[in-house]
Amino acid sequence: MSFDRLIEGIKKTKNPTVAGLDPKLDFIPAFLKEEAYARVGKTLEGAAEALYLFNVGLIDALCDIVPAVKPQAAYYEMYGWQGVRALRRTIVYAKSKGMFVIADGKRNDIGTTMEAYAKAHLGTVEVEGEPLEAFGADALTVNGYLGTDGVKPVLNVCREQDKGLFILVKTSNPSSGELQDRVLEDGLTIYRTMGNMCEAWGKELPGQFGYSGVGAVVGATYPEQLRELRQALPHTFFLVPGYGAQGGGAKDVAPAFDEKGLGAIINSSRGIMCAWKKEEGLDPKEYAQAARREAIRMRDEITALIPIAD
Amino acid sequence: MSFDRLIEGIKKTKNPTVAGLDPKLDFIPAFLKEEAYARVGKTLEGAAEALYLFNVGLIDALCDIVPAVKPQAAYYEMYGWQGVRALRRTIVYAKSKGMFVIADGKRNDIGTTMEAYAKAHLGTVEVEGEPLEAFGADALTVNGYLGTDGVKPVLNVCREQDKGLFILVKTSNPSSGELQDRVLEDGLTIYRTMGNMCEAWGKELPGQFGYSGVGAVVGATYPEQLRELRQALPHTFFLVPGYGAQGGGAKDVAPAFDEKGLGAIINSSRGIMCAWKKEEGLDPKEYAQAARREAIRMRDEITALIPIAD
Repeated sequence: MSFDRLIEGIKKTKNPTVAGLDPKLDFIPAFLKEEAYARVGKTLEGAAEALYLFNVGLIDALCDIVPAVKPQAAYYEMYGWQGVRALRRTIVYAKSKGMFVIADGKRNDIGTTMEAYAKAHLGTVEVEGEPLEAFGADALTVNGYLGTDGVKPVLNVCREQDKGLFILVKTSNPSSGELQDRVLEDGLTIYRTMGNMCEAWGKELPGQFGYSGVGAVVGATYPEQLRELRQALPHTFFLVPGYGAQGGGAKDVAPAFDEKGLGAIINSSRGIMCAWKKEEGLDPKEYAQAARREAIRMRDEITALIPIAD
Repeated sequence: MSFDRLIEGIKKTKNPTVAGLDPKLDFIPAFLKEEAYARVGKTLEGAAEALYLFNVGLIDALCDIVPAVKPQAAYYEMYGWQGVRALRRTIVYAKSKGMFVIADGKRNDIGTTMEAYAKAHLGTVEVEGEPLEAFGADALTVNGYLGTDGVKPVLNVCREQDKGLFILVKTSNPSSGELQDRVLEDGLTIYRTMGNMCEAWGKELPGQFGYSGVGAVVGATYPEQLRELRQALPHTFFLVPGYGAQGGGAKDVAPAFDEKGLGAIINSSRGIMCAWKKEEGLDPKEYAQAARREAIRMRDEITALIPIAD
């Protein structure tokens, strides 16, 4: 009912980072794609098989040093239901290796429809009285534009199943300010207003480390807002995208953490997935080892600045 | 690159409504579920098969009088990738019957990730140079909280593939005002600001009936805001949920239309899908005919108040 399990993983690995699994075909070494196409054809099914094989290699190479993975739903849906099946297989495999899985779906709707999303991604669904797991992630990203009706159904599933959610507050993209930075009549920005709503919703899901099960997405590309929100939202755990490829560095993400080195998890997707393309002369079959080296470099860079207290 | 195809369907059927396909198992007659379970088991696969059989019956009964269907992604995801496959099969079947398909996914992300959603739901994805269709809907609902970075990639796919998108502006739920009704420093509400953004984005996708390919979701439960937005956004086509089960009636949706009876399409989901439960003594095998009767009643109720000009 909170992010306690995630925080325990961060403390155990002494690593406050999450590996994004956004497997575009361009990111996948040719030998893996050929293996997948040979097995099931140059089809959506073949592409989906390549995604899964790529992820398995990454998970095997990262699972003892990185506490969590964050598959981005869009890159699986792009390959149809076949890709969505690869998402499910990826989640099952990552969990079997002890990793915490954040499904990045930015889902949003109301009432029973939002409840359906929550059951799909975090809970179980009943078929003739039998509870079945559809995707089974540990946390889901959520867009809060629809207000409490779009969040409450997720809170209920999180409470029952010991899961969490991250609500978009201040996103990492250049145009995030078009709406999110606008100032309301009471003097608060929209992102701050959304942050305050996270803090309020989180009261229903308290955690033993002081952080609730309602987290916030706050981009590494806006360090000033990270600092402001860390101070304003003491019970809200942050998922921080935008490190690496989008331009944020260790100094930029430092304000996301509290004095114990907790309170945030930093995502890297392309940096880790595509590390193999940056090492000159590397055999592409070593892509997962390159990912591991980059994950270690990132961990060390961040924890040198922000050590995690015991 | 606009909603011209949808508007042509509305003019041809003289019916400005869309049937929501949100197939919870509870809504499906027992004989269909038994048929599906007998074929593939009491599993996610069996549930997904029941969803598809239910939809086929509805589409057959509605396709000559209702111009569009709106499957809600959540109800398919709830049954895993198997349910997502039923979504794909439903889209293909509805299109084969000449219906316009609005995928209600409220997707949102940025850059290449949003591009992946657009390719998934509206466009094609390349596998080794071959463009393949993943879901193939005609329009997608989108949440605009992330600003232009989250919309531009969809505009590009819509232009290339003659598709459209609907952005959440003022949603139908009770708590939609928590954020959407807040007033900015310039005196405009957030929903009005989002509406103005739709009007601006729509300039890239002009249509021959005066409406662009960037529509807006505006709930039937807020007729005053419908009226305000219809006047303020003359080129923005409205998708209007909240009729029927959520409390909106024909009078409430009337302000969504222009003087030619165009400019909006009104959704009914449960009203149509569950019509069979309300007709006393009805054989459940007649569920699709009951849906057709309700669709005709709804069409006549709305067009009596708002006739569609030739």
